[in-house]
Amino acid sequence: MTFTATVLTLYPEAFPGPLGVSLLDTARRNGLWALETVDIRSFSRHKHASVDDTPAGGGPGMVLRPDVTAAAIDSLTLAGRPLIHMTPRGAPLSQAMVRDWAAGPGVVVFCGRFEGLDQRVVEARAMTEVSVGDAVLAGGEAPAMVLIEACVRLIPGVLGKIESTHEESFEGDLLEYPQYTRPRVWEERQIPEVLLSGDHGRIARWRKEMAEEITRVRRPDLWERYQRRKGEKS
Amino acid sequence: MTFTATVLTLYPEAFPGPLGVSLLDTARRNGLWALETVDIRSFSRHKHASVDDTPAGGGPGMVLRPDVTAAAIDSLTLAGRPLIHMTPRGAPLSQAMVRDWAAGPGVVVFCGRFEGLDQRVVEARAMTEVSVGDAVLAGGEAPAMVLIEACVRLIPGVLGKIESTHEESFEGDLLEYPQYTRPRVWEERQIPEVLLSGDHGRIARWRKEMAEEITRVRRPDLWERYQRRKGEKS
Repeated sequence: MTFTATVLTLYPEAFPGPLGVSLLDTARRNGLWALETVDIRSFSRHKHASVDDTPAGGGPGMVLRPDVTAAAIDSLTLAGRPLIHMTPRGAPLSQAMVRDWAAGPGVVVFCGRFEGLDQRVVEARAMTEVSVGDAVLAGGEAPAMVLIEACVRLIPGVLGKIESTHEESFEGDLLEYPQYTRPRVWEERQIPEVLLSGDHGRIARWRKEMAEEITRVRRPDLWERYQRRKGEKS
Repeated sequence: MTFTATVLTLYPEAFPGPLGVSLLDTARRNGLWALETVDIRSFSRHKHASVDDTPAGGGPGMVLRPDVTAAAIDSLTLAGRPLIHMTPRGAPLSQAMVRDWAAGPGVVVFCGRFEGLDQRVVEARAMTEVSVGDAVLAGGEAPAMVLIEACVRLIPGVLGKIESTHEESFEGDLLEYPQYTRPRVWEERQIPEVLLSGDHGRIARWRKEMAEEITRVRRPDLWERYQRRKGEKS
C-alpha cells in the first residue's frame, strides 16, 4: 500500500513546492508515496463558485462554508487515514504524531484560509486539528507541506540511508548536537578536537553533552520532559 | 522601502509555492513585498558543485560545508535584515518574532538540508536559529515559507482589511474562538444562538469565554502565560 497524501485546498497550484524536490521527488516518481490535491472551490454550487461567507455574530474577514467544505471532504475515501485540519488552534505538530502517521496509509490534510472553517464541519467530520508554530498564516498550505514532508521522509527507502532518521532532533526529547565538516580550519575556526580524535566513546559522550546543553538552554519544555523520562528509567 | 525576503536554498525551484498564490501573490505583483532566491550550489568551487561533506566525528548523512554556505551568505547585503537559519534546534517561531520582522526591511532565510549546517557558520555569521514545530524535515524550505508568509500578511495593504490581523490566535496569548457562517442550519447543526442575537456585548463575552476554554484545554503553556499577564494587569 502506498502512503498517499491528499490535500484539500483552494490553491492546488501552491503544490508540490518543497514536496517536489530532492529525495522526496525521487521517491514519489519511484512510487514510494503519492500526492494528490483536491480543489475545494470545485465543490461550490454557488454563483461565482464562492466558498466563504461573513462570520455569524460579525467581525472581520470571511469563514469557509460548511456545505462546500463538507462536500469536498465527503468526495474522498479516507481509507483509514486521519483527516487533519491545519489551524493555529490545533495541537502543535510533534515527531510522535509524524511517526504514527508515517507508519499508516497516508494523511488527508485540509488547508484553512481566511478567518477559518465553520466549526460544525470540524466537529461533524471529527477533524484532527494540528498547528505548526505559534504564528498566524494566510492559509494552511505551507503547514500542510511541513506535515507531509515530515511524514514522507520517514517512509522506508525515501532517505538515502535509513540510519539518517535515527540520531536526530526530538528523538529522545533532545535537540541535535552541533555538526561540523571539512575544511578542518575555516576562517581560523577549528573543528572541535574531540571530533577528530577517532575515539568513538568520547565523541558519543561529547555529542550527548552538547545535545543536553542546547536543549536545556533553548527548550526548557523539552528539557523538563527529558529529565522526567530519565528519572523514570533509573 | 519594500519588505524583501531572500531565501538561500539548494532548491530554488521549490519557491514560490504557497507564497505565489492569493493575496500574497497580488501584493507581490503590486510591489508591496519582494521574494528572491539564491542558489547555494552556485557558490561551490568544488568538482560536481558539491556543497556537503561527511560529518566530523562520524555518523550518518552529510553536513553543509562552511566555505560554500558562507560564500552564499556573504554575497548578500543584509541591510538590517535578520539572517535566519531554519533548523529544529532553533527557537520556536512566535507571533512576536513575526511582528518584529514584518515591521522591518525584510528577512534573509537560510534553508538547511541533510544533517545540517556546519556550526562554525552559524556562529561566525551570528545566525538566528528558528524552528517551526517539533518535527524533523528534509529541508528548511517549507518552514521558510511558513515564516515568510506569517511576516508578509502583516504588511499594511496585503490583507483585504487591516482589521483581519487584530482578533486572531496568539494575539493576547489566546487561541481563536470558533467561527460559523451560513447556512444557519447545516446537517441539523445550528449556529450557536448567541451569535445570531445581535447583542454585541454578549457575542464578545461568549467569544472570549470560548477562546479561553480552548486555550486552557489545548495549550496549557499559552494558558499559563495568559493567566500571568492578566494577574500583572489587575
